[in-house]
Amino acid sequence: MPDEFEVIAAMSKAAGKPPKGYSQIGDDVAVVTPRPGRVVLKTDMLVEHTDVPAGMTYRQAARKAVAMCVSDFASKGVRPDSFMISLGLRRGVDKEEVEMVALGLRDAVERWGVHLVGGDTNEAEELIVGCSMVGFAKRVVDRGGASPGDALVVTGAFGLPPAGLRIMLGGAKAKARFGQEARRSVLEPEPSLDVGVALAPYLTSAMDSSDGLARSIHTLARASGVGFVVERLPAAGGVMDFADANDLDGDKLILEGGEEYVIVGTIRARDVRAAERAVKKAGGELTVVGRATERKEVVLEVGGRLEAIRDVGWTHLGRR
Amino acid sequence: MPDEFEVIAAMSKAAGKPPKGYSQIGDDVAVVTPRPGRVVLKTDMLVEHTDVPAGMTYRQAARKAVAMCVSDFASKGVRPDSFMISLGLRRGVDKEEVEMVALGLRDAVERWGVHLVGGDTNEAEELIVGCSMVGFAKRVVDRGGASPGDALVVTGAFGLPPAGLRIMLGGAKAKARFGQEARRSVLEPEPSLDVGVALAPYLTSAMDSSDGLARSIHTLARASGVGFVVERLPAAGGVMDFADANDLDGDKLILEGGEEYVIVGTIRARDVRAAERAVKKAGGELTVVGRATERKEVVLEVGGRLEAIRDVGWTHLGRR
Repeated sequence: MPDEFEVIAAMSKAAGKPPKGYSQIGDDVAVVTPRPGRVVLKTDMLVEHTDVPAGMTYRQAARKAVAMCVSDFASKGVRPDSFMISLGLRRGVDKEEVEMVALGLRDAVERWGVHLVGGDTNEAEELIVGCSMVGFAKRVVDRGGASPGDALVVTGAFGLPPAGLRIMLGGAKAKARFGQEARRSVLEPEPSLDVGVALAPYLTSAMDSSDGLARSIHTLARASGVGFVVERLPAAGGVMDFADANDLDGDKLILEGGEEYVIVGTIRARDVRAAERAVKKAGGELTVVGRATERKEVVLEVGGRLEAIRDVGWTHLGRR
Repeated sequence: MPDEFEVIAAMSKAAGKPPKGYSQIGDDVAVVTPRPGRVVLKTDMLVEHTDVPAGMTYRQAARKAVAMCVSDFASKGVRPDSFMISLGLRRGVDKEEVEMVALGLRDAVERWGVHLVGGDTNEAEELIVGCSMVGFAKRVVDRGGASPGDALVVTGAFGLPPAGLRIMLGGAKAKARFGQEARRSVLEPEPSLDVGVALAPYLTSAMDSSDGLARSIHTLARASGVGFVVERLPAAGGVMDFADANDLDGDKLILEGGEEYVIVGTIRARDVRAAERAVKKAGGELTVVGRATERKEVVLEVGGRLEAIRDVGWTHLGRR
């Protein structure tokens, strides 16, 4: 069984050689060279029994812990610079598991171009991967800037992660290709970092959708003092068929699923075209799904009728 | 049982109103206004079953999680600016426990003048309090700058926390006043922040002593490529009597105890007087306990004889 020092050695290897002005893993503190703007920080914690479904490797879990922070940065239009990892490992963890965690961190370093500058190793009763991330930005998009008339936009489609979880944990049926895609969305989430950075100049408000689309829209509504009419649900291809085949409510899967890595935001109506072009250039696709309203309700327009969208999503420690 | 939103509300209350240029708790990311210098970061994680002995309240545990980070900043001579908290709470945690955690964070905010700018709430199988801290500094004292001839200094005395743990967990006997002081050192650790900041200009190397005095001296020796002769063990008052009364090895208690919050560092011999004055002005006391040597060994001088000091201390996941 590896001890703390062997764990630190594995993490240092994952970090690679630090660039000039950045500290090597292993001192009491980490040092990063600032860039212009304000300092943007995020901390998130992956906990084995709630965040690591059966079938997810330690490599994927470690990568996911970083993805969770990257997703928040992406939704604010900020490119992250560096991160630290706080590990809780079971006593008796084996060398291969530690190496898998290190590989997952290496995956994250390479995927999102962030520096792993420090960390902390502990003993815990389950795998814990705490990620703390830092970046720099002149402007940080907040949640409270939407005005009536703004377009409600999303940077991707919804429903794959909740479908994937139901396949992995509940034995839901799925066609081979859809099943693969759905599982992959759970195991190797892809935050829209380049898209978020490209989109930021146009956003009047934004947040990520890790607690689900409905929760995100309601949160933007509350913070901005507006309502929203949702005109179309951004369903990922195959989600409605999957829902039908498994007697699930497709709309609910899309609205209340959670664990999504899509940016939900608002844009002034006159900026929509330019924003679409910017997002396309960054390799993504922007979809207008509704509009902000003065009337402070969040509703779905279905064939000319308005239905309330419930403020339901993932709540840690919530009643289930 | 409080859910995530009630937890966030309690933490926001603990944070208080943010100063201008700092974000309020609750958005996807936290924003901090930078000060001159490089960005200094630290993450540490308090885990209930290893870091929270029986008799420690949730309020003390939360304060301790922040103290662990403050201690690292102090040893590098850097005043921390802000911190984030990543909480893991048991399902079924009650409102009073959450309020105790919030009170402990408030204690930390007030004690060390740091801003609580963000956090994250999760469900875990035991209490987890992850602290991520940021500060700014033009110079960060590292571990590798000691030269032969430098004085080895400490900013406090050793042995109280290991004695306190033995009293709390092992039923060791102690005189009333010593027992109180020893328990307090465990329950409400006091990192030497003002002292560390005052001392920093004189330090050629330094680190904290959370893994014990012997481990700190050996680490500075390795990083700096020197050895050390320790001429006196900095025993806290009453530790030797406590060791005798409980058939414990007093030297071992002082050298290998761990959970200490004292700065261990080196200073050029000619700077010792000025450093002593600076530390006194900051409310502390500097003690010279030995000197750096060219010979790369760490030894204790006892009555003219040299005895090797073992590189032993607290190792997470270590063989015990």
